[in-house]
Amino acid sequence: MALIVQKYGGTSVGDTDRIKNVAARIKASHDAGHQLVVVVSARAGVTNELTARAKAVNPRPDNREMDMLLAVGEQETIALTAMALHAIDVPAVSYTGPQAGIFTDLVHTKAKIKNIVPTALRHDLKAGKVVIVAGFQGVNEHGQITTLGRGGSDLTAIALAAALKADKCEIYTDVDGVYTADPRAVKDARKLAEISYDEMLELASQGSKVMQSRSVEFAKKYGVVFEVRSSFNHNPGTIVKEEVAYMEKVVVRGVAVDKDQAKVVISNLPDKPGSAAAVLRALAEASINVDMIVQNVGHNGVASVTFTVPKDDAHAAVKVLPSVFKKLGGGEVAAYDNIAKLSVVGVGMRTHAGVAAQMLEALAEQKINVELIATSEIKVTLAVPRDRADDAQRAVHTAFGLGKKD
Amino acid sequence: MALIVQKYGGTSVGDTDRIKNVAARIKASHDAGHQLVVVVSARAGVTNELTARAKAVNPRPDNREMDMLLAVGEQETIALTAMALHAIDVPAVSYTGPQAGIFTDLVHTKAKIKNIVPTALRHDLKAGKVVIVAGFQGVNEHGQITTLGRGGSDLTAIALAAALKADKCEIYTDVDGVYTADPRAVKDARKLAEISYDEMLELASQGSKVMQSRSVEFAKKYGVVFEVRSSFNHNPGTIVKEEVAYMEKVVVRGVAVDKDQAKVVISNLPDKPGSAAAVLRALAEASINVDMIVQNVGHNGVASVTFTVPKDDAHAAVKVLPSVFKKLGGGEVAAYDNIAKLSVVGVGMRTHAGVAAQMLEALAEQKINVELIATSEIKVTLAVPRDRADDAQRAVHTAFGLGKKD
Repeated sequence: MALIVQKYGGTSVGDTDRIKNVAARIKASHDAGHQLVVVVSARAGVTNELTARAKAVNPRPDNREMDMLLAVGEQETIALTAMALHAIDVPAVSYTGPQAGIFTDLVHTKAKIKNIVPTALRHDLKAGKVVIVAGFQGVNEHGQITTLGRGGSDLTAIALAAALKADKCEIYTDVDGVYTADPRAVKDARKLAEISYDEMLELASQGSKVMQSRSVEFAKKYGVVFEVRSSFNHNPGTIVKEEVAYMEKVVVRGVAVDKDQAKVVISNLPDKPGSAAAVLRALAEASINVDMIVQNVGHNGVASVTFTVPKDDAHAAVKVLPSVFKKLGGGEVAAYDNIAKLSVVGVGMRTHAGVAAQMLEALAEQKINVELIATSEIKVTLAVPRDRADDAQRAVHTAFGLGKKD
Repeated sequence: MALIVQKYGGTSVGDTDRIKNVAARIKASHDAGHQLVVVVSARAGVTNELTARAKAVNPRPDNREMDMLLAVGEQETIALTAMALHAIDVPAVSYTGPQAGIFTDLVHTKAKIKNIVPTALRHDLKAGKVVIVAGFQGVNEHGQITTLGRGGSDLTAIALAAALKADKCEIYTDVDGVYTADPRAVKDARKLAEISYDEMLELASQGSKVMQSRSVEFAKKYGVVFEVRSSFNHNPGTIVKEEVAYMEKVVVRGVAVDKDQAKVVISNLPDKPGSAAAVLRALAEASINVDMIVQNVGHNGVASVTFTVPKDDAHAAVKVLPSVFKKLGGGEVAAYDNIAKLSVVGVGMRTHAGVAAQMLEALAEQKINVELIATSEIKVTLAVPRDRADDAQRAVHTAFGLGKKD
C-alpha cells in the first residue's frame, strides 16, 4: 500500500464526463489498496470566464478580490469530483486549499507556499477516504484566500507530496509525457522514460510547457520524484527525478522551441561603463523578461546590446528605453518580433563539447540563419527566424539521433 | 452616522451590469456617511447550473459536497461586488460566510446559525470599509462549509444586523415591498408602509413569497426591524417590526394566494382511535407538508380526512398511503391538484370576529366554491378552485376595503 498524490489539470476535469473519467481512474488506484490525495484544477475555461466578469465590473481588479473570485473554480471541481467518486462507491471528501492547511505568504495572485499542516488530510486518509484537494489556492496568516499563480495546481500536488512524504506523485495532464521534441513538429519525437529536474527545468523554460518551472524547482528542492502522464490513456509517462540512469552516454536529452519571441537590438549606445547596466535596469523595472543577452564590444565610441524578450514585451521594451538613452546621451532601439528560440538540453553536455558546433552545422545544412547563441551548463539556445523554427527543430533532432529507434 | 446592513438578492446581482447598479446604490449610502455591511446572494441561475452539474456526476449528491459546491455562487458575487465598488472609489472588502465568523450547526444544506463572531468585520468597518458578506453560507465547528438552505441570504443579513446591533436592515429584492394582495392579480393592491412580524409570517407562508418564514422568525426573536424594498428603484418599501401603529382599526392587513396546492381526500377509513394519526404519521415520515386538515366525524363505522398539500407532494401522498390502509384494514385516497389557498391576514383579527363570514359572503357573491376552511389567530384560509383564485382574491380584497384610496 502506497500513499500517492495525483494531480489532474483543467482539461482532465473539463466537463462532467471527464470528471467521471477521472473518478474511474482514482477508483482503480483506490481499489488497488493505495491511499490517495488528489489535487484538481478548475475546469478549463473557468478562469477566463471569471476574469472576464471581473474586468466587466473593474478594468483593474484588486488582487485580493481576484483571489477570492478565482478560488471558486477549483472549489467547484473538488465538490464534483468527490460526488463522482461517491457515485461509484469510493469514499471521498473534498478540501479547499485553506481547509487542507496550505499556508502561504501575503502576496495575492502569486502567493508562495510557506508551510503545509495536513493534519485533517491525514485523519481522513487513515479513515480510508480519498482526499480531494483544490489546487492553486491557500490561505495567508490573516485568513484570506490566496492563489499561487500559473502552474499553481502542480505546485500544490508536489508540495503536498513533500509534506505527506508520499511514495509517488503523478501529474496527469493532456500530454503523454516529456518528448525529445514537439511531436506535432517532429514526427519521430520520442517520449522520454526519465528526465532529470535540471533538464526538465531547461525544457520547461524554453517552451515545452508541460509544467511551470517553479513546480519543478520545488520538486528538486524537496526531492519529490514525480511522473508526468496523460489522464486520457494508460500509457506510462515520464518520471522526473534527480539522477537519471543512462543506458549509454546521452549528450542531448531533448529539443525545445519557443516561437513567441522577439529580438531587440540596441545600437549607438555610448561606450562607457554602466551603459548596458542602465538599459537592463530599466527593462527589469518594467518587468520585461530579457534573455540571450549579447553585448558587442565598443567600436568608434559606441556599443550595442542585443537580446530576446517574449513577443508581447517587445513593444514595452521599445517604449521604455528612449528615456534611458536621453540620460546616457545616445542610443537607438529596434525590435524584430519574428524570432524563435531553439534549445537543446542535456545534463550530458557537462562532460561533452561540440554541441553548439553540431547544432550550427545542422542548421547551416538547411540554410537556416542563426541570429544569437547562448549557452549554459546543460543547454545551448539559438535564436532563429520563426518561420524556420520547425525545420530547425527537425534538423537538430535528427543530428543528435533523438528519434525513435526501430 | 448609522450602521446599516443591506441585502441584495440573486436578481439584483444577476449580471455584471446589475452588480454595478448595486455598487452605485451602496456608494450613495457610503457617501452619506453610513457604515455598511452588504450581504449578497449568488447571481440568479447559478444555483441551478451548479445543481445540474452535480446531478450529472451523481444523481444523489452528498450534502457536505453540495454545500462545498453551492458556496461558490456567493463567493463569486462578493468578489465582483467589491471590485465594482473599488471601480467607483469606495473602499470595500469581501468576506465568505466562514471568514465573516458565521458559525452554524453540523446540518449540511440547511444549517442553522449558532452564533456570529464579527470581530474581523468590525475591524474593517472601523477602518471605513464597506464589508461585503456572502449570504447563505457559514462554517461548522469542524471547519466545514455549510449552507443555510432556502432564504439563507436574508437570514445572514438579519442575523448580522442582530449581531452587530445595526441601526437599520434593508432587504433589497425585485419587488417594491409587501402589498395588500398580489399586484399582478389585484389592480388596486396597495403597498403597506408597515407590517408586523406575525402578519409577515402568515403572508409569507401563504404564498406572498417576499421572504422565507425563518428569516422573519429570526428577526422577531431578536427584535431586528427591517425594510423590504426594491433594488431597481428608490421607492420606500415596507417596514417589518413588532408593533405597527394603526391609523384606524385594521382588521385585515392583506390577502395572499398560493396556487400550487392540491387537496387530498381520504375516505372509508376505519372509524377507530388512531386511524387519522397513522395516516398523518406516514405522511410526516415521507416529509409531506400537510395543511388545512379537516377530519369528518365517523359515520357507519368509517371516517374521512381531507387536507391540502403542495401540488408536487400530491403524488407521493397517494403512493405512501395504501400500505397504511392495509395495516388499518381499510381506506381510499384521491388527490385533486387544482386547488389554491386564499388567506387573509391581520393582527386585528385577534379582537374582531366575522372575518371568515365576510370572506364566504364575498366569494358566494362571485359563485366561488369553498372547499375547506381553516383559521388561526391572525389568519383565515380558504381552499378554492385554482381557476377562480384570482377572482376570489379580488373579491376579498375589495370586501375588506384594502384597495388604494384616492
